[in-house]
Amino acid sequence: MKIHFIATGGTIDKVYFDAKSEYHIGSPQVLEVLKEAGVAFEYEIEPVLAKDSLEMTDADRQTIRERVLASPCERIVITHGTDTMADTGRLLCDVPGKTIVLTGAMQPARFRSTDATFNIGMAIGAVSSLPPGVYLSMNGRLFDPRKVRKNRDKQCFEEV
Amino acid sequence: MKIHFIATGGTIDKVYFDAKSEYHIGSPQVLEVLKEAGVAFEYEIEPVLAKDSLEMTDADRQTIRERVLASPCERIVITHGTDTMADTGRLLCDVPGKTIVLTGAMQPARFRSTDATFNIGMAIGAVSSLPPGVYLSMNGRLFDPRKVRKNRDKQCFEEV
Amino acid sequence: MKIHFIATGGTIDKVYFDAKSEYHIGSPQVLEVLKEAGVAFEYEIEPVLAKDSLEMTDADRQTIRERVLASPCERIVITHGTDTMADTGRLLCDVPGKTIVLTGAMQPARFRSTDATFNIGMAIGAVSSLPPGVYLSMNGRLFDPRKVRKNRDKQCFEEV
Amino acid sequence: MKIHFIATGGTIDKVYFDAKSEYHIGSPQVLEVLKEAGVAFEYEIEPVLAKDSLEMTDADRQTIRERVLASPCERIVITHGTDTMADTGRLLCDVPGKTIVLTGAMQPARFRSTDATFNIGMAIGAVSSLPPGVYLSMNGRLFDPRKVRKNRDKQCFEEV
Repeated sequence: MKIHFIATGGTIDKVYFDAKSEYHIGSPQVLEVLKEAGVAFEYEIEPVLAKDSLEMTDADRQTIRERVLASPCERIVITHGTDTMADTGRLLCDVPGKTIVLTGAMQPARFRSTDATFNIGMAIGAVSSLPPGVYLSMNGRLFDPRKVRKNRDKQCFEEV
Repeated sequence: MKIHFIATGGTIDKVYFDAKSEYHIGSPQVLEVLKEAGVAFEYEIEPVLAKDSLEMTDADRQTIRERVLASPCERIVITHGTDTMADTGRLLCDVPGKTIVLTGAMQPARFRSTDATFNIGMAIGAVSSLPPGVYLSMNGRLFDPRKVRKNRDKQCFEEV
Repeated sequence: MKIHFIATGGTIDKVYFDAKSEYHIGSPQVLEVLKEAGVAFEYEIEPVLAKDSLEMTDADRQTIRERVLASPCERIVITHGTDTMADTGRLLCDVPGKTIVLTGAMQPARFRSTDATFNIGMAIGAVSSLPPGVYLSMNGRLFDPRKVRKNRDKQCFEEV
Repeated sequence: MKIHFIATGGTIDKVYFDAKSEYHIGSPQVLEVLKEAGVAFEYEIEPVLAKDSLEMTDADRQTIRERVLASPCERIVITHGTDTMADTGRLLCDVPGKTIVLTGAMQPARFRSTDATFNIGMAIGAVSSLPPGVYLSMNGRLFDPRKVRKNRDKQCFEEV
């Protein structure tokens, strides 16, 4: 069983460039997480976008959708900014025959304290176990992308 | 959906006591992992043993089994030393109506580089998604405890 | 021997607020560093500013100078943004009878990989050992604030 | 100014080998610390021993002394187990013309929470600043090796 990771940016991949005292999207951190975890399954990581999800356009989401449809894998994990993760998830709900899990992080993977490593582990546990469909995995929970929202004040996802 | 964590010791919980220049089992690290991940589901953590799994006796395994049978939860994650994780898993295979996932770590959770956080995330993803049964979750993979062994040289689990 | 820490902000104290997808100055990280290091000397931490050093005004620097002059301690460590650390240092060169070390970080202390912990350790080693004067401590070296500049391309300090 | 690092083992360099569920001395961690800190001075790292300092013999200490005497550098940092760090320090007190700082760690450098990074930074700040002599640097303080002991209960060094 091979897992296809599609990286689109978001907080999970953010780095800090001192040169500009700003925060930017860096390279996909999922590779670092998989290495540190010593995983022993087959995988492929495809960087598709490197955007804060608030800046994603409809065209960006179509690009993600095309990559999902073109994937030879039945199990796909998409790393994504949290603000519009559910929007992208909803656009994938009619993709047949694939188990798709979207995840991301509230704190960058490069932080000493971060939810990124846990979230990628959780997404892999879910994508390996669930029947075809689209799932959003955050805060240790699995959501239907059509029935979830990010609660900015509480900094966590909740059902709607 | 509530998850019941049963902590039994193992590398995942090891600490270093400088006073004796030795390595011992400390308090269950699963709580630290769940806090850092910002999980938003209901859970209970029950420390049952604090042993290196090579030192577990048959009586210890019966104790674990009793706690599993007595659990009001249908979803249980057991943190366990890796050396005899499969043995304990096999003893639980006839427990009806519960999804049980065993996991642990090759490197202590207190290390800067560790598989512990990923593994607990993966176990939660799996236990939330799978039908009743017993599963061993290590190296990003899910195994049947009756068909797995730890390869000590490669430091990973593999099917047999 | 008591050490007085004056925190003024800078990269060392930066945090990431997901709510705004931005980077801000958080609470002084020097306290966390001292706790983790298990230090056994007397100290006081005084947060004076919380600014990116590019945004510091002349009035801000006067405030820092006043706090230094008012300090009952002979040994002072100032945590500061790197971009104008030397400017602030130069303004302190005529302060008599005090050993003053300025330091900061290229990567936030909250990052998994950071120079913050090392730099604070180095500053304490220097401030405990040097005669009165003003020193800039970065990249494992001690500089005269009148003869140093930050090389933005190489991301390190060098003599001029 | 070049700094000569002499690594002798101790807790600072300890690793965990799951294969044996034991704790051993690994490669000198000072290199990792210097890299992460982005230091910009000239240095050399010489691994001389890899021992828990309780197991060091008189012959081992003579070996360390010979390396110190043979060093072309005037500034030397020795990483050392904490239990007999002061003994080794005392044996070096008559070495002329060199500033020698001994340091180590209570928690291994490979731990997520460790005093190792801070301690190496502190040792470099001290060795760069102090006149010739032998100094023990632990817990953010500098000690005369003839007037210090490790308090095992408090897990810190104190004057005697």
